[in-house]
Amino acid sequence: MNLTPATVSRSKVESSEIILQSDLNSMGHLFGGRLVSIIDKIAAISALKHAHRAVVTLSIDRLVFRKPVRAGAIITVKASVNRVFNRSMEVGVIAVSLPFGIMEEEHVCSAYLTFVALDADGKPVEISPILPETNEEKRRFEEAGIRREHRLNLQTKLGKN
Amino acid sequence: MNLTPATVSRSKVESSEIILQSDLNSMGHLFGGRLVSIIDKIAAISALKHAHRAVVTLSIDRLVFRKPVRAGAIITVKASVNRVFNRSMEVGVIAVSLPFGIMEEEHVCSAYLTFVALDADGKPVEISPILPETNEEKRRFEEAGIRREHRLNLQTKLGKN
Amino acid sequence: MNLTPATVSRSKVESSEIILQSDLNSMGHLFGGRLVSIIDKIAAISALKHAHRAVVTLSIDRLVFRKPVRAGAIITVKASVNRVFNRSMEVGVIAVSLPFGIMEEEHVCSAYLTFVALDADGKPVEISPILPETNEEKRRFEEAGIRREHRLNLQTKLGKN
Amino acid sequence: MNLTPATVSRSKVESSEIILQSDLNSMGHLFGGRLVSIIDKIAAISALKHAHRAVVTLSIDRLVFRKPVRAGAIITVKASVNRVFNRSMEVGVIAVSLPFGIMEEEHVCSAYLTFVALDADGKPVEISPILPETNEEKRRFEEAGIRREHRLNLQTKLGKN
Amino acid sequence: MNLTPATVSRSKVESSEIILQSDLNSMGHLFGGRLVSIIDKIAAISALKHAHRAVVTLSIDRLVFRKPVRAGAIITVKASVNRVFNRSMEVGVIAVSLPFGIMEEEHVCSAYLTFVALDADGKPVEISPILPETNEEKRRFEEAGIRREHRLNLQTKLGKN
Amino acid sequence: MNLTPATVSRSKVESSEIILQSDLNSMGHLFGGRLVSIIDKIAAISALKHAHRAVVTLSIDRLVFRKPVRAGAIITVKASVNRVFNRSMEVGVIAVSLPFGIMEEEHVCSAYLTFVALDADGKPVEISPILPETNEEKRRFEEAGIRREHRLNLQTKLGKN
Repeated sequence: MNLTPATVSRSKVESSEIILQSDLNSMGHLFGGRLVSIIDKIAAISALKHAHRAVVTLSIDRLVFRKPVRAGAIITVKASVNRVFNRSMEVGVIAVSLPFGIMEEEHVCSAYLTFVALDADGKPVEISPILPETNEEKRRFEEAGIRREHRLNLQTKLGKN
Repeated sequence: MNLTPATVSRSKVESSEIILQSDLNSMGHLFGGRLVSIIDKIAAISALKHAHRAVVTLSIDRLVFRKPVRAGAIITVKASVNRVFNRSMEVGVIAVSLPFGIMEEEHVCSAYLTFVALDADGKPVEISPILPETNEEKRRFEEAGIRREHRLNLQTKLGKN
Repeated sequence: MNLTPATVSRSKVESSEIILQSDLNSMGHLFGGRLVSIIDKIAAISALKHAHRAVVTLSIDRLVFRKPVRAGAIITVKASVNRVFNRSMEVGVIAVSLPFGIMEEEHVCSAYLTFVALDADGKPVEISPILPETNEEKRRFEEAGIRREHRLNLQTKLGKN
Repeated sequence: MNLTPATVSRSKVESSEIILQSDLNSMGHLFGGRLVSIIDKIAAISALKHAHRAVVTLSIDRLVFRKPVRAGAIITVKASVNRVFNRSMEVGVIAVSLPFGIMEEEHVCSAYLTFVALDADGKPVEISPILPETNEEKRRFEEAGIRREHRLNLQTKLGKN
Repeated sequence: MNLTPATVSRSKVESSEIILQSDLNSMGHLFGGRLVSIIDKIAAISALKHAHRAVVTLSIDRLVFRKPVRAGAIITVKASVNRVFNRSMEVGVIAVSLPFGIMEEEHVCSAYLTFVALDADGKPVEISPILPETNEEKRRFEEAGIRREHRLNLQTKLGKN
Repeated sequence: MNLTPATVSRSKVESSEIILQSDLNSMGHLFGGRLVSIIDKIAAISALKHAHRAVVTLSIDRLVFRKPVRAGAIITVKASVNRVFNRSMEVGVIAVSLPFGIMEEEHVCSAYLTFVALDADGKPVEISPILPETNEEKRRFEEAGIRREHRLNLQTKLGKN
């Protein structure tokens, strides 16, 4: 098994969508479930590009909707692997929106998801380490560790995961 | 404005789906984004039944996939409001699966989401208090407070939300 | 083969949906085909929960749209097995709507469907009898027999099924 | 208001689809709800072509699945108005399938639906009479009357519609 | 292998759709990609009916949107094989629209697509010749040859296909 | 009206998708219409980013499928504006695929589409010139002119567009 470390930039993915009437809830805003579905897909592609194996979402650790998105906006979702924890990895995602006719990007959503990589029998396997290079990547690497520690503390406190 | 407290049971919603080939990822498991999309929808219906107003998802605070789901399974997603925090409320969701031909339910996914209720101008408004009645509802009410406190601590630590 | 009778309540299923812009026809009402598609799915889940086998829709015997449904409404579709006729069973379905901002349920659609249960080779098999318990269940059991008799009479008269 | 009679042939519509994996249930057959959704759409187009007004489905009076349809088959759904009853009209639909590699059509589904035509306020209006011309059209016109009479008898017997 | 020539009329297919809100772009017009998707599907059915084999789209040689289509319109897409070139065939498609309340057809889109037929191993195979019968069919047969020649000239000029 | 020239790089868009079972035709390949629908969407986003106005597809001038795509592959579609012709612009698109487990990109599809930009009344308007900077961008700019000239010649020859 090849576990050569790889750079964060090799795991980068982005994807753009134009928001249609059929993507809206009854308030005229992009339906939350529709955006989450795109985020899960792009995060999975990022995890797959890093792990070179089938991956599955283990958890959405935190996803925040910051601004509503309306019809005609161009949404761009960007993902990369923040950190590998032996048999799991955190993927960070941000979504930016270019509202129609405005042409200045707004930050509309952030999310952190955890993925595992699977072998041919569907068993979780060890994942290659990731090498943060830029200051931004190093900051995200540190924060992924803090988020994980806090999550484990909370699970201990509530007696469950 | 009417802010009469209401019971948890008034906010209960459930929804069943049968998993088709078109819901599967390339491993033959239910695609994560598909399940999250159903969860967001059912949680929103629960929040709407409690608040009697338009609601929007503010965040997915934690969502854990516990077991893979295969084609032919019946998925049932159940949601209710755990706690109201003045202008936001936590909705708890669990998904259980009845795998084809087995007829014994498995717990496949848990999630906690935060919603806000909006007035006609799209501004967040105060939400009626919720009254936990059973021990189970009281436990969930307490845990919602612990989750929120931990989340605020983490945001302070990372310098963001 | 196990053909132990089972209660009607074991076959009960319900499912809620929120109606979006993308579910509407050009009159701004819920598109009929969309609701029928949900009804067929929930009825099939009910039949599956009773028969413990793969089931297929044989016929929609009668489906009546009573009121239009608009965007923002919460639709709840409820199904249970009304009666078993040896190798087929009638499932009864009702759909109620909670229009946005009104919070009083309206009865929007009723339907009766017939399902068969299949063995591994796709051949129809005998189905466990159903035990109506409440007066409501007993009334539905009787009516299912009257509907079937009328249907067979009509088929004889028209020389076809 | 123009209520000039029109021929059945003016209301004829047909539509072909190729059945994909994503249209199948867990038995590998075309999902019933998917076919019903197509049938409702094509029947509505036929009613619209006859009435020259907005139309809505009032009921599915009877729909029978005769044979399973598999992936790769070409489904052709054909609809025409069978008879006008003052403020409602019966549309007849048949679906034929050309299984992949076989190239001989099978009759897979029949359906009868009732539609009403609406004015700009959504009120049902009188519909132009239909003129059956061929023997086939005249037979369908007669049978539509028999089906309607039987339905009204059954409703009287069960004390509801 | 049976390569008996067949008439153009045997390859004719048509399909009607009613345009819903969910089919529109942010200008309130039918979304281009939605119409192209229908056109590709109907053209593939036409190619399949002629070749009696699995077919795949090789290219869209030219597709022109002539008029916008709005919600409530009935779109009818018609396809037939224009010409067979040994191992490929050109399918011609036109889409006409019946705008809501107008009832006079408009020509909204034309397209020419090239398909190949595949054997069980996915290798392209020879296709039965087509017999144009009417003047219209003969004109289309000639034009398909001119389009192909021009395309090959352009590819030579640009050094690629 | 602001018609300041803009660089090609400002119009660049890319979007990744993972191919699921539900995207496949009955040969197990990505359904052509599904890919064309993605291509039209991404090309429209590129045109919109250049024109800063609502845009509509006028034509697909040429789209070639080079290789089949299977389930599990990651498809990345990339678009940019090749050339502006006063009131229309050519957008070039390529799609590359990363087949599952192989991790070497294949070129699977190329396409050229023409868009117009519209004012608030839906009338075509003049579009800002585009500035090709790299050799690649200059080559594409030249080729767009050759394609357009050939297309006009062919239309003259066939007596139509």
